[in-house]
Parts: sequence; structure tokens; C-alpha cells
Amino acid sequence: MSTPTEQTHHSLIAGEAVPGNGGTTQAVDPAQNAPTGPTFTLLDDEQAAAAPRAAAEAFDAYRKITPEARAAFLKTAAERIDQAGEEIIANAMRETGLPEPRLRGELGRTVNQLRLFAEVARAGDHHGVRIEPALPERTPLPRPDLRQRKLPLGPVAVFGASNFPLAFSVAGGDTASALAAGCPVVFKAHNAHPATSLLVGEALSAAVAEHGLPAGVFSLVFGPGTAVGQQLVSDPRIKAVGFTGSRGGGTALMATAAARPEPIPVYAEMSSVNPVFVLPSSAAGDRDALAEGFVASLNGSAGQLCTAPGLLFVPEGADGDDLTARITEKLSAAAGTTMLTPQICSSRVEGEKKLAALDGVTETGRGGEGAKENAPAPAVFSTDLETFAHTPELSEEIFGALCLIVRYGSADQLPSVAGALEGQLTATLQIGAGIDWDVDADAGSDTGSEHRVVQELLEALELRAGRVLFNGWPTGVDVGDAMVHGGPYPATSDGRSTSVGAAAIERFLRPVVYQNTPASLLPAPVREDNPWNLGRRVEGTHVAADREKSPQGPGEDVLKGKSA
Amino acid sequence: MSTPTEQTHHSLIAGEAVPGNGGTTQAVDPAQNAPTGPTFTLLDDEQAAAAPRAAAEAFDAYRKITPEARAAFLKTAAERIDQAGEEIIANAMRETGLPEPRLRGELGRTVNQLRLFAEVARAGDHHGVRIEPALPERTPLPRPDLRQRKLPLGPVAVFGASNFPLAFSVAGGDTASALAAGCPVVFKAHNAHPATSLLVGEALSAAVAEHGLPAGVFSLVFGPGTAVGQQLVSDPRIKAVGFTGSRGGGTALMATAAARPEPIPVYAEMSSVNPVFVLPSSAAGDRDALAEGFVASLNGSAGQLCTAPGLLFVPEGADGDDLTARITEKLSAAAGTTMLTPQICSSRVEGEKKLAALDGVTETGRGGEGAKENAPAPAVFSTDLETFAHTPELSEEIFGALCLIVRYGSADQLPSVAGALEGQLTATLQIGAGIDWDVDADAGSDTGSEHRVVQELLEALELRAGRVLFNGWPTGVDVGDAMVHGGPYPATSDGRSTSVGAAAIERFLRPVVYQNTPASLLPAPVREDNPWNLGRRVEGTHVAADREKSPQGPGEDVLKGKSA
Repeated sequence: MSTPTEQTHHSLIAGEAVPGNGGTTQAVDPAQNAPTGPTFTLLDDEQAAAAPRAAAEAFDAYRKITPEARAAFLKTAAERIDQAGEEIIANAMRETGLPEPRLRGELGRTVNQLRLFAEVARAGDHHGVRIEPALPERTPLPRPDLRQRKLPLGPVAVFGASNFPLAFSVAGGDTASALAAGCPVVFKAHNAHPATSLLVGEALSAAVAEHGLPAGVFSLVFGPGTAVGQQLVSDPRIKAVGFTGSRGGGTALMATAAARPEPIPVYAEMSSVNPVFVLPSSAAGDRDALAEGFVASLNGSAGQLCTAPGLLFVPEGADGDDLTARITEKLSAAAGTTMLTPQICSSRVEGEKKLAALDGVTETGRGGEGAKENAPAPAVFSTDLETFAHTPELSEEIFGALCLIVRYGSADQLPSVAGALEGQLTATLQIGAGIDWDVDADAGSDTGSEHRVVQELLEALELRAGRVLFNGWPTGVDVGDAMVHGGPYPATSDGRSTSVGAAAIERFLRPVVYQNTPASLLPAPVREDNPWNLGRRVEGTHVAADREKSPQGPGEDVLKGKSA
Repeated sequence: MSTPTEQTHHSLIAGEAVPGNGGTTQAVDPAQNAPTGPTFTLLDDEQAAAAPRAAAEAFDAYRKITPEARAAFLKTAAERIDQAGEEIIANAMRETGLPEPRLRGELGRTVNQLRLFAEVARAGDHHGVRIEPALPERTPLPRPDLRQRKLPLGPVAVFGASNFPLAFSVAGGDTASALAAGCPVVFKAHNAHPATSLLVGEALSAAVAEHGLPAGVFSLVFGPGTAVGQQLVSDPRIKAVGFTGSRGGGTALMATAAARPEPIPVYAEMSSVNPVFVLPSSAAGDRDALAEGFVASLNGSAGQLCTAPGLLFVPEGADGDDLTARITEKLSAAAGTTMLTPQICSSRVEGEKKLAALDGVTETGRGGEGAKENAPAPAVFSTDLETFAHTPELSEEIFGALCLIVRYGSADQLPSVAGALEGQLTATLQIGAGIDWDVDADAGSDTGSEHRVVQELLEALELRAGRVLFNGWPTGVDVGDAMVHGGPYPATSDGRSTSVGAAAIERFLRPVVYQNTPASLLPAPVREDNPWNLGRRVEGTHVAADREKSPQGPGEDVLKGKSA
């Protein structure tokens, strides 16, 4: 579509609009509780199968293009999305209720992410080349010539999240990393933001066409309910799955993938309560700043961020009481904002009711409801450590601006509490900012004893989370080379991976080794003359790419640049 | 035990002999079809749970020891096994029917593998360090300090294979790579070789004790049937599974692992027919050498190697007829050798009967039966490409010295045949040795046309196998930095990994990132002063370890040394 007018729009399979036989859908403006924008037809199962078919046909050509060609394609995709930016943002505001500044930041993150993966694809470290030349004289057996590289898995089915209509949607992290790895993508759109999805999908398809790539490299599929998605995951041509959403949705896809004749990996980012531990030294410090930072992190984007703080551990006693009072105060000045869909809002409201009804849980503070629809008041409840430890429901995620404060008696209790938590995307420690932790490490003093507790807490949390952070708030994920957005189950289905940052490319690859292969038959990454100028391991030792020959490594502009 | 006398022996949990309440077992000498050696008690489910409990207790201390300490432990383990070598080989011969030279080679491979992983642990590339220092001035948002490293997953349950009583058993590849990664190991012994298992387990436990490590770093469990194994995989303290065995066994463990409240990765190496494609240019060459190499690879270790050639594609016409005739001739001079167990032998015999009864399949050749028990004759059957393509049973693995020759009309048919194969550990191309493939790459000439076919075949096979090799035989896996022993399902449960070679360590790790962490709290691998002298990625670019400071990278002696 050029603009989402009142006309009817369709799925985009291998660059072609395909009217669906599976009914229609229309977005709902959650701020008005009213349908908005054009009608979108939905594919039935049989029609949707055309997308993995086209992806499988495109795979062999796409996987073999040079790093430069793949990088150029991803950069063009970023440019086309950027060019459609105003229209994308206007539609996303209408379809998601998210405010313009947030969506502008997310658009920037999305195009920068594509550019980051362009650089990752070009640098080519993900080829994972390991070379052991032949040793014909070795005893008792000669060593053959062995050359390992990593290959893309094949077509990937990606499911969009509702809460990031750009950065975790059509051209989001999973799509960018799969395309960078050499995998065609079949994208199942989230029906909450179809016009936004189609605009981004058209930009991606335009980039595919512009670079003369096989059209099946990218398809955008609209389907009813969960049937088409399950069918995509069952399709034998699909070789991996990326998903961001609920625990129920993720585990359903995991079960489908495991039941296939050929099981495939599922990378589902699912649920996390993102515990924050306020240590006594922190509670003794600038409590006003703590309370303000907390409420902002909790209430931003209506609490609809995967890393929103859902658990806050606060010491008992005067400092903790004062911190809690300040949170109550800040919260009372905060207002709810419109949530993404009426369904998400009602789950949030129901979740709060259940929480409030639990024994030992009391309300600590509450903001105002938002002026528009589906904008429940942000709220904070409290309990004690004993109740928390014996009530498993208190560790469950309630999506939205809702947090449980857990008051603890002694910091010594925290490491074992941390060790009993389920897997998390993030865990945060608030420690005394005024203390020089690098100097006061000796035990004996009060800070020395807290230093020991913090060390133990860190060692417990690194086993339970993908990211451990200090003196900040977990919302806001920096997209670069070192980020991990993942973590043990149920934060994700597969803690061995990340869905944000350069290392995400590795989830879509597998190794293969070539033994005694004639030079003219070897693929470029493992050829002796190293035509792609890759960094490689030779005899177990890293040998850098030739920096004189062609610029390698992610460009400064991307890694150090804007990445909201 | 010091020697497997007639006394009764037990499982070894955290260094202690634990008499089992789950009955007893005794090995069978397959060459005599008679019980042999002492009695071993079997643990019941409840008793077996002590092993993961001890492993979980040991994990936190073990994961934190220095690279040098971990390397020293693994080297001691190798030394202790080497010291018990004569006794181990004597028992393995008695329990497996495998000949002494084969077992001596396997013992060498096993200890070298431990030494390789000692070097891998010491070099520390598996920590996967990625550092992005803080950029406080970055706009629109400052970048926090981000430091990524990889952590061990936790206790690993490893299941021994029957066909490699040393190299894929108690101290085999999965155990060595898990221990190198920092994961305690609970090893479920294969009941076909209990005395061999206990001797190796005692050597490993001695190394644990000698280095003052927590005893739970290693346990060896004897259990009845499959119940104890399933219970280990269900145990919440177990965080990953390594398995080498049958497709049925592997998929049963996959199902158990997927059904856990917290699903865990299963690395199961299961089944592969290891197709070998004889191209016309090869069939036109030294057919006698081809036939001899094939029969040796087929019949070695009674065909009980994961990479034994089970499918041989041979051209129709005079060259192919002659090659087949020579295979028949060589085979008639070959004799069967004793298989590992009477059960494996009877499966092999039943498999052959079913194969022989299929329409369009004829017997091509047969060797003699072995002089001892359980030593069926090696055999080769033939069919045509049409029959092969329409009979899925012909692609199934029959464990043992049994191969199906598939005669093809034109090499042009091979790429699509290859593309339709299930996942394989290996795929082999036999191409004309006399042709200079690097010069004759132009199409037009006969060799040019075959060059194109070989290229297409290679590109089909690299997507179906973990290792592609030329002008050799797939049996014999070199253990070093570049090897891949893996491949798409059903060759393994998870083609993203290898069970042989240095890269195997990666299967037992997951990433975590530290954000804005005070220097004194950072773990060693990501500290600014790099106390472990690791190679790291900084701002997306590899920075090598300081070679002056401490020798880094796998030692020459291991990587270039003996590795049968």
C-alpha cells in the first residue's frame, strides 16, 4: 500500500499482494476503543504455505551472496524504512496508542539495528571459520585438511511482538539477525498493528527487489488467531522460529516445533519480572532519585516493556519505609497511559485484582487513570519476604505498570531469594552510590559485609538472568556488540542465545566442516586465499582480517552511534 | 575398584561407592555369549538423585576456578586414565569384543581429548568476552559499560555409547567438554561395559580429589533399563544432556527434557547412514583401491561406527559394474567380527533380513561369519535410484557392517537425491583423483560438466551433513580445533553443535552481560585488567591475548599430535 486508506490490504508473499481467504481484520485504536484504518485480509493455512515455499526457493541463492551484498541489502532496507518513517509513525500511533517520542526512538533503534547487522554481516565473524591444514606427516595418522564454517539454518518464521511494533516486529531484531545470517524470513504479523506492519514489510520487500534478490527472501503474512502461526512452525521448510510474546504463546510454539518429524530450534522471549534489589547502602542514599527512577521505569510505555521492573526488594526499617513512602508519592502524581490493546489492558486489570486478593499483599500506591481508554492506573503493592517465598503466584509476570515491593529484614537473605527465582531477562542491584566499592572491598566494616552480600547476590543472579545491572533501571536495552537480551527459561525458551545485539546472528547458524576438499570447490569463507577477508581461527589461534585490505569489524558509526 | 575381581562393585557418587537397591547387572562377553566379570549393583531412582544433588552443590565452586586450575585437573584426569590403561584395555576387550589395537587407539584418543580440552579451558576463548566501555557522551542516550561473557549451564547428564567404550563413554567427548566448560558431570554408564566404566570413573574421581575440587564434580551412575536415565534428565538440577546412541533412545530423552517445567538442551547424536557418492570420474579411476577402502571402512569395528558408510552411490555402466564386482570380491575375503552385544547383533541380523526382503533390492556380496559369537558376515546389497527414491526404509540406519549400493544413471541426478536425504553426520564424495579439479573447472569439457555436478552436490550435502569429505572414508574422526561431528536432525538432536573437537565446549555455555558493574565485583573474564589474559572482542573487534604474558591458544603438542 502507499497509504493505508479505506481500501482493503493483503499479505505480501515474495513481494506480491495475496488476498486472503481466511476472513479479515481491522486494527483497534486502543485510545478510542474503536476500529481504525483499513481492512486486511487474512490467509488461510493453505495460502500461508506459499510463504515458506517461496523462502525455501530463495534460500540457496540468498545464502551464497557476498558479505558486501548482504550488507548493502540490509542498509537499503534501513533506508527505505527511514524514508517511510513519518507514515510508519503516524500509523503506529493510531494502532498502538504509544506516544510519538517513544515511536520515533523505536524507529531509530530499528533502522540502526538493521545497519548494525549490515556491519555484522560484512565483517563476517559469524562465519566462525576454523582451519587446520593437512599434516601428512603426523603419526600415528596423518591429519586431513579441515575447514569449518557456519551456515545459515534455512528459512526462519518470525512472530512479531505487540509491545514493540517496530523494533520487535516486521524488521525487528529477529528479522535483521536472520537476514544477516543468510536466512529468508517469513514474518507472521501481529494483528494489533497491521498497517504499521505492512508499511515496514513493503519497505523490506522493496529492498529485496532493488538488490535483485529472490523475492522469497521476505514475506509478510496476516492470519487469523494462532492457526496460521502454528502451521508455519509445522512447515517442513521452516528451520527455526523467532518469537516475542507471552509464555503461553511461546510454549505452544515450542511444543509444535518439538513435535515435528524434524524438530527445530525455537527462540521465544516470553516472560520476566526483572527483579530489582535495593541494598541497605542504596536505601540509605538518595531515596528521592531512586523513587523517581523506579516510577519512570515502571510506568514508561504503560509498563509494557519486557524488562519493566515487576519486583522491587526494599529493606525493612526507616530507610525502606521512607523509600516506599516516596514511591507512593511519586506514583500518585503519575498517570496511566493507553495500553496496546483492550485485551492486554483487561489482562492487566484482572492480574491486579488477583494480586490484591492474595493474603499478605497490600496496596502501597497508585497513580491516576489515563484520560483516554485502556489506561489503567499504575500501581504498586507490597508484601514481606516470608509471604513472597511461599506464594509462587507472586513471582509471575503481570504485563503492565504493576510492581510488587518485597520488604526484607536482612541483606543476607537476598542471595538465597535470588537463587530461587525463575529465569529472568534482567536483574538489577541498587547499591550505595557514595561508596567506593572498589576500595571498600574488605570485610569487617559495614560496607565490607555488604560487599560480600552483593558479591553473593551477583553470583546468584548471573545464573538466573541474561543481564545484570547496577544502579540503573532495566528498561532501555542498548543495541550493540556486547548486549544480551535473553536468559534462562522461562525468560526465554533457550538461554544460550540473545535476541538483541550482534551475537543474535549466531542463533541462526550451524557448523559444517570440509575435509580434503579441492580448492576450487571450497566455499569462499574457508578458501586459503580468504577472499572475504574474514578473521579466522587457524590451528586454534585467532588470525585477524587484513585491515588494510578492506574495512572489517562493525563500523564506528553504528556501534557508537544512536541506539535508543 | 582396584581390579574387577569377583567382588561386587557399585556406582560412584561424588567419589563414594554407593551400593544400589535397584538390582544387579553383569557384563556379557559377546565373543563367548557368556557372562563375564564381577557383579555391579544398580541404583534405584531415589538413590540416583544423589548424583545431581552433589553436582549442583559442586557447581558454584567448580565454575569459578581459574583456567589454569581447570586445565590442570583435566590433564591429571588424562594421566590417571593413561596409568590405568592396561587394565582398562583388558576389561574393555572382555566386555566389548573390540580388538586390542582398536581399543589402544581409542584410549589414546580419549586421553588426548582430555588434554585438548585442558588447553581449550586454559586458552579461554570459550568465555566469549565482548566488551563495550561506557560512552557517557553518546547521543541521544549515553552507552552504559557492557561486558559479556559465557557461563557454564550447570550440571550435565551424560549417557555413554556402547560403540566407543572409552572415547564416547565415561571420560569421552561430552564429559571432557562439559568439565572444560565448568559443568559438573553425572555420567550414566552403559551397562554393556561396567568394569571399563568404573575403572575410568575411578581415575576421574581420583583427579577430582587430587585437585581438591568438590567431589560432586563427577559421579558415575549404574542403573537398570532406562528409568534412572529418564529420571536424571527430569531432575531439576540437571541443566543439559549429552547422549550418543540410538534414535529411539535420543528422541525419548528429548521428549523428557522438553516436558520438564524448565526444558533443557539435549545434545543427542543418534543415527546416520553416511552416504558416499562415487562420481563417474572416480569410478573411471583406481577401482581396486576404492573397493578396498570401502570394505575396510564398512567392516572396521564390525561396522559399529557412527560414521560407517551405509549408502554407496555407484554409476551404472561398465565402470560401476567393475567397481561393484571388486567390492564383491574384497568382501568375500572379509570376515565378520564380534559385535558389542548379542542384542546389537540380533538387530543387525533382523535389519538385514528386512532389507533383503524389500522389492528391488538384491544381494551384491557377503563376507564370512566370524569365528566367535555374534560376528555376522559383512554384507552389501544393491538397488537402483528409482527404487531408492520411493522406499524410505532404504535410508534408515542398520547399525553394523551392512551397506546399500544405489546405482545411478547420470551424475546429474545426484544433487536432488542428496537434497532429499535426512540429516547426516557425514557425506563423502569420491571424485577422479587424476583430474586437477582446480584447473579443469571450466564447463564444456567432460570434467567441466562433472565439476558443475560436484559443486551442486557439495552445496546440497553441506546442508544435510556436519562433515563433507572428499576422496577418503568417513570413519575416523580427527579430534582437533576444526572438527564437526554433528549435523541436522536426525543425525543429531541439535545441528547447531558438535560432539567432537574444541568447539564442543560451546554447547554447555550461555551468555550473560554485566552493565555498569563496579570493577571489584566483576568476574575475572571481563575485568579491565584481563587477569586471565583472554582474547576478547572490544567494540566489536577481536583483541588477542598477550602471548608474551602467558602461553595462550591450544598447545601445539595437542593440536598437531596424535589423535586417532
